[in-house]
Amino acid sequence: MKRVYNFSPGPAALPQEVIKQAAEEMTNWRGSGLSVMEMSHRGREFTEILATTKADLRSLLSIPDNYKVLLMQGGAIAENAIVPMNLVGHKAQPATIDFVNTGHWSSKTIEEAHKYAKVNVAASSEDKGFTYVPARDTWKLTPDAAYVHICTNETIGGVEFDFTPDVGNVPLVADMSSNILSREIDISKYAVIYAGAQKNIGPAGVTIVIVRDDMLGHALPICPSAFDWQQVAEHDSMFNTPPTYPIYIAGLTFQWMKRQGGVAAMEQVNIAKAKLMYDYLDSTGFYLNNVPAANRSRMNVPFFLKDESLNSKFIAEADQQGLVQLKGHSSVGGMRASIYNAMPMEGVQALVAFMKDFEKKYG
Amino acid sequence: MKRVYNFSPGPAALPQEVIKQAAEEMTNWRGSGLSVMEMSHRGREFTEILATTKADLRSLLSIPDNYKVLLMQGGAIAENAIVPMNLVGHKAQPATIDFVNTGHWSSKTIEEAHKYAKVNVAASSEDKGFTYVPARDTWKLTPDAAYVHICTNETIGGVEFDFTPDVGNVPLVADMSSNILSREIDISKYAVIYAGAQKNIGPAGVTIVIVRDDMLGHALPICPSAFDWQQVAEHDSMFNTPPTYPIYIAGLTFQWMKRQGGVAAMEQVNIAKAKLMYDYLDSTGFYLNNVPAANRSRMNVPFFLKDESLNSKFIAEADQQGLVQLKGHSSVGGMRASIYNAMPMEGVQALVAFMKDFEKKYG
Repeated sequence: MKRVYNFSPGPAALPQEVIKQAAEEMTNWRGSGLSVMEMSHRGREFTEILATTKADLRSLLSIPDNYKVLLMQGGAIAENAIVPMNLVGHKAQPATIDFVNTGHWSSKTIEEAHKYAKVNVAASSEDKGFTYVPARDTWKLTPDAAYVHICTNETIGGVEFDFTPDVGNVPLVADMSSNILSREIDISKYAVIYAGAQKNIGPAGVTIVIVRDDMLGHALPICPSAFDWQQVAEHDSMFNTPPTYPIYIAGLTFQWMKRQGGVAAMEQVNIAKAKLMYDYLDSTGFYLNNVPAANRSRMNVPFFLKDESLNSKFIAEADQQGLVQLKGHSSVGGMRASIYNAMPMEGVQALVAFMKDFEKKYG
Repeated sequence: MKRVYNFSPGPAALPQEVIKQAAEEMTNWRGSGLSVMEMSHRGREFTEILATTKADLRSLLSIPDNYKVLLMQGGAIAENAIVPMNLVGHKAQPATIDFVNTGHWSSKTIEEAHKYAKVNVAASSEDKGFTYVPARDTWKLTPDAAYVHICTNETIGGVEFDFTPDVGNVPLVADMSSNILSREIDISKYAVIYAGAQKNIGPAGVTIVIVRDDMLGHALPICPSAFDWQQVAEHDSMFNTPPTYPIYIAGLTFQWMKRQGGVAAMEQVNIAKAKLMYDYLDSTGFYLNNVPAANRSRMNVPFFLKDESLNSKFIAEADQQGLVQLKGHSSVGGMRASIYNAMPMEGVQALVAFMKDFEKKYG
């Protein structure tokens, strides 16, 4: 079977060039006589890979000097505990955290936070099935909150923030797992940004944490040292052995992004890919998407067949055409096309062409 | 440059066959049209990889049915917190943990435990620079301890347990990061075994936890859900997205071990490799090793040049011969040859031949 177009929500498609380079370098990285997987994390080869990877991420996102880049493990779900363990200690206990609930991932983050703090849901879109982002002027924030937490893109609902909220002097923390590096952002408006790598960056197993210096050094006493950002920062992400191969692949992806022209260029392609999908969805009654235009995710496009009895036919025929992983999350049903940075325009064109044919055949 | 013999303590050498297979399968895993890195962790391809990997580990170690195999993240250093967070809740708080301190890694484990429990160092070999394992009859155990913790192989000191201690009804917990799968063990004598994969198993980023069923379900309320063994077990190691590619490589390594004849066969090779090293060290006054024969590690062989002014010459000339990563840990100095399962006999023969030549030249 030839290579397919993979619309998986994560772990997700990687750029073809990255996969090819990884295959070529697997047995002997640049004349070292070693696979990257076999390198001591403290050896000169991996030290170089790590430094380049971090520098490239800094450059791609224009990360200011007063922020640390940490490479951790456990993904965003582990960060749901790690973030409060690191941040609520800045306030008298028990501290309050403000959350904006925009869907499945926000809800999981909120649930976990109860272990470490008082929780205030400042705004929620649950009233309409998590299909929108509540406008900033409706948020009921706590004046002295430890931080305000948002999830900038809900992978399952396909809902994405189209603005960076102003929350005054309270630190703004964002889970950007599914849209980091897909659009330009002003890092300085956030105190902490975190993201599992397995959507827009690389393979599962590495978590990116971008943290402003003043957020370090107040972890709760029960925070495991390996997850205490201060410890991780002091040890240059080597307090414990880092996930060396996933970091290497993330680094290859950063280099690929730079060759594409960086985040600004990726964003233009992402806008065009999303437009192709949504324009078609809006042009037909055969498929549906319930998210208002301003909050539609550029990364995850959920859609439903009006006649849901055709769902399994849709999946089977798409599979046959090499368009895979289109089934929606079990909590919402229907279909979902995840079109992260690594999905080329040609993949989206192939999907839309298939959807049109399918509509002609069964519509 | 051709492939080298890599004596790194970890991340460490992988079997050549595994590296080659990984390179061949990188762009298109068995006709799926996908790289393993791109597979949804819930898709049928990765589900198959995960199931095979766990079944192979169970078969290699003859793991009884009343034990769960968990694949986690963060390595043994994260487990230093995760183990007490999961186990001290079985006792009234504050609970006591008994530790046997045999070196660098035991010491780190003990330090972290203070966050969650009272600590009793039941025995220690610090009096002789951590060069031996204290005999069982010298241990001062606490009758009602939450558990007894040992590190069965100290990677830095090169000290390995040559016995499984009887600790009565108190659960025995072992960090086996650097000797798991290198020798036959009776799993049923342990309540919990954990190991970072990056020494004897595969690439960094996956942690193996083998846990007896009665050890589940009592995590402290502050334990992050992603590190609560009960949650991890219930979700078949998919509570958070697992490190899919490191798991796949671990699985390839397990298949390779089975082709070699399993753990019993690996153990025979490991005994022979270690004997070659230690017999030579004992035959000369040019090099030294301070560990008594019974406690010498089969996996990590630290040694010193009697004339330490030759150290940098030794490293440089070994490097030139393709014998790399021989420098000892900074805390003890000298040299260290890590000869895990993946190091072939030919590598050890090449090292000993080089050491003899070096002795002739400078001795």
